[in-house]
Amino acid sequence: MIKKRIYLLTLMISLTGFSQESFHDSIKIKEIFHQSLTNGKSYEWLSYLTQNIGGRLSGSANAQKAVDWGKKELEKLGLNKVWLQPVMVPHWERGEKEEAFILDKKGRISVPICALGGSIATKKGGVTAQVIEVQSVDEVEALGEQVRGKIVFYNRPMDPDLIRTFQAYGGAVNQRFDGARVAGKYGAVGAIIRSINLRLDDIPHTGVMSYGDLTEAQKVPTAAISTIAANQLSALLKTNPDTRFYFKQSCQTFPDALSFNVIGELTGSSVPNEYIVVGGHLDSWDLAEGAQDDGAGIVQSMEVLRIFKELNYKPKRSIRVVLYMNEENGSRGGKEYARVALERNEKHIAALESDAGGFTPRGFGFNCNEANYQQVLKWKPLFEPYLVHVFAKGGGGSDVGPLQNEHNVIFGLQPDSQRYFDYHHTSIDKLDIVNKREVELGAAAMTAMIYLFDKYGIK
Amino acid sequence: MIKKRIYLLTLMISLTGFSQESFHDSIKIKEIFHQSLTNGKSYEWLSYLTQNIGGRLSGSANAQKAVDWGKKELEKLGLNKVWLQPVMVPHWERGEKEEAFILDKKGRISVPICALGGSIATKKGGVTAQVIEVQSVDEVEALGEQVRGKIVFYNRPMDPDLIRTFQAYGGAVNQRFDGARVAGKYGAVGAIIRSINLRLDDIPHTGVMSYGDLTEAQKVPTAAISTIAANQLSALLKTNPDTRFYFKQSCQTFPDALSFNVIGELTGSSVPNEYIVVGGHLDSWDLAEGAQDDGAGIVQSMEVLRIFKELNYKPKRSIRVVLYMNEENGSRGGKEYARVALERNEKHIAALESDAGGFTPRGFGFNCNEANYQQVLKWKPLFEPYLVHVFAKGGGGSDVGPLQNEHNVIFGLQPDSQRYFDYHHTSIDKLDIVNKREVELGAAAMTAMIYLFDKYGIK
Repeated sequence: MIKKRIYLLTLMISLTGFSQESFHDSIKIKEIFHQSLTNGKSYEWLSYLTQNIGGRLSGSANAQKAVDWGKKELEKLGLNKVWLQPVMVPHWERGEKEEAFILDKKGRISVPICALGGSIATKKGGVTAQVIEVQSVDEVEALGEQVRGKIVFYNRPMDPDLIRTFQAYGGAVNQRFDGARVAGKYGAVGAIIRSINLRLDDIPHTGVMSYGDLTEAQKVPTAAISTIAANQLSALLKTNPDTRFYFKQSCQTFPDALSFNVIGELTGSSVPNEYIVVGGHLDSWDLAEGAQDDGAGIVQSMEVLRIFKELNYKPKRSIRVVLYMNEENGSRGGKEYARVALERNEKHIAALESDAGGFTPRGFGFNCNEANYQQVLKWKPLFEPYLVHVFAKGGGGSDVGPLQNEHNVIFGLQPDSQRYFDYHHTSIDKLDIVNKREVELGAAAMTAMIYLFDKYGIK
Repeated sequence: MIKKRIYLLTLMISLTGFSQESFHDSIKIKEIFHQSLTNGKSYEWLSYLTQNIGGRLSGSANAQKAVDWGKKELEKLGLNKVWLQPVMVPHWERGEKEEAFILDKKGRISVPICALGGSIATKKGGVTAQVIEVQSVDEVEALGEQVRGKIVFYNRPMDPDLIRTFQAYGGAVNQRFDGARVAGKYGAVGAIIRSINLRLDDIPHTGVMSYGDLTEAQKVPTAAISTIAANQLSALLKTNPDTRFYFKQSCQTFPDALSFNVIGELTGSSVPNEYIVVGGHLDSWDLAEGAQDDGAGIVQSMEVLRIFKELNYKPKRSIRVVLYMNEENGSRGGKEYARVALERNEKHIAALESDAGGFTPRGFGFNCNEANYQQVLKWKPLFEPYLVHVFAKGGGGSDVGPLQNEHNVIFGLQPDSQRYFDYHHTSIDKLDIVNKREVELGAAAMTAMIYLFDKYGIK
């Protein structure tokens, strides 16, 4: 059956004027997809990581379990080297389950809420105050002292018109990251944000925030409420501006903890001093199992090297899988890997990140110079049979980003993004929302791309 | 915000050398997507259809409820005409819940099973027999009398290598449709099939079958078992060829019933005697709510006309939404609509079907002559910003297929297909597996395409 298909592929390719080299590549890529779809290990790994380890926030015992597991699994693959790269990471804990109420004339309405990563706790009895609704950090800057004594409620939704939902996320996320800092600067007593979610539902979405250079006294607790709760609060504020809000959380930041990036390498046969990286992040938020974010990216990255071994492919260049630690609240792992690479003068020609979910892959986004972009565009026809051929400029990810230089190619897998923010940083990011084939298709597309960079290098 | 985008769009388009006409089209399509994504009604309709009506197999009381609902909702849209088109449909009922066991040396193993649509019942006590496993209908033809007295077990899986899963479905489905007919011809006492599902799970998938021209005496009961059960049975047969199988079902075919296609029309302003159809099928299998198959296609088709009304778009040509009855087990609605169109000499220039699930739209598949295909390829850049630009030859669907002639364009929406067969014809095809934005994106893409056919006609 495979033989017949290869024959047809030969015919098709000769008719479309592919070169002999492209023909060879198309056969190799066919083998890669076949391996991932019929004998893949990505989903089995993901099942273990999510079901047997679960949520694994930096500095937690589970994060260490994930490190141990990743190392053990990579060691089983028979790579040339597997090692742990130490990195100090933030250690924040959520504490007890948060609670919140809207306090209206008619009584109190319970609201789904979760503390943002990095936030301080409220006082033991929680914080209660009037609410001032805003659409942006800039609006708070303009209001200034008018927010004093109040809870600032950031309620700018994601823009539903943007087809690539990561753009909509990008347009909303600064409320989460900077909201408490700006509110605190002007004397607010707390900051709550509308969950960064396109869907109307009852699920709060956490995520990292920063107090920047605020003094301890200026810091205020901050949390996310669900999109339904945000709409409800906004509606109540319109009829009654005196509506108050209460929330209570006991989260806490501990001293930085020792953790690790997990690295495996297939050493290059002819150009071993050129490195290609593929990776995702091993840490996850604590609310669920980190299945789509970023368990999927981790197992897809591991699968790239497993497939090479399984197909007995000997790379020319050195290919590393990096299971980065601490993407979610610090990106320390990504920065440390790049720092060490620079220190050791390791020439990284390409780095691929998978951190946009394990959904059906649609294409890749590239950060690179024009010559390299033109080269990847030539590879596009090889991805068309797999419907992974939306290539665009821009992309990469926060873990591979620090490796960027003028010459190399930093890029990211771009899966279908419509469902991603339904689950992102929530209590429902669990294995049951992951489709096995979708993860496998992504792993195969990543393997194919790494194969091409290994074979052809960069311009 | 929208104004700023339109400005940017203008700039972009002028830079890429789009014509003035294309520019106008891109603005219109932007409005269409905005309407669907921010003010869409498709998901609200789907919620009602699935939650308040539910499964709606042809000839059932629920199918009639769906007809009444469809007519009422279309009437609310202020179209020029809404009517019911009578059609006689098969009426088959599943009866009591089926049961099945693998009878091994060690005892009996319960197996998830469901009767295939159109199957006869077993005797009251069920049927028990030795099992003969085959990979194809041809294999049974070759075995001939060797299947006498046995239950034929068709176990050819879907091909996981095929990226477009509908191709894999096409490669497996004849076991379901023809399996019992061929088994019965040679004296088998029953036929069971491996569920047509790429995933390993415990969910049986129903679907239509046919006895062809078998006599009543030759007919044998037939059912689908889950993929996990199929693997288990196959493994047991390898160690013990005497493994027997038992199943019991009480399904029954009643006389044909009167039902209806539901049709709504926006009459054309300048070329009213040219018709464009958009539709899906209103009936569904009985096991769940028919959310992806084909509630999504129904509400997307209705949304096309709602968006035109909402945007105050006055079509040149007459645009009809057709909620077809009986796609699942007879396609009588599709055939009847085409028969009446021919009888009335109505010139149908284009017909679009959505019956591949409400997942993220990836593109369209076209059945048409080369001149028309070249025209649609020119429209492709208009769909690129929405990532719905995989255009291919081949497509349409069983409801619009009968309208095909040498001149017109019969085409289908092609959503992402990776998850579709996990749910297809099962007890889990419910609203909770549908993503609102994905359905809305599909509805918008369909509306955009119908707009273009209305504006430019066919070649």
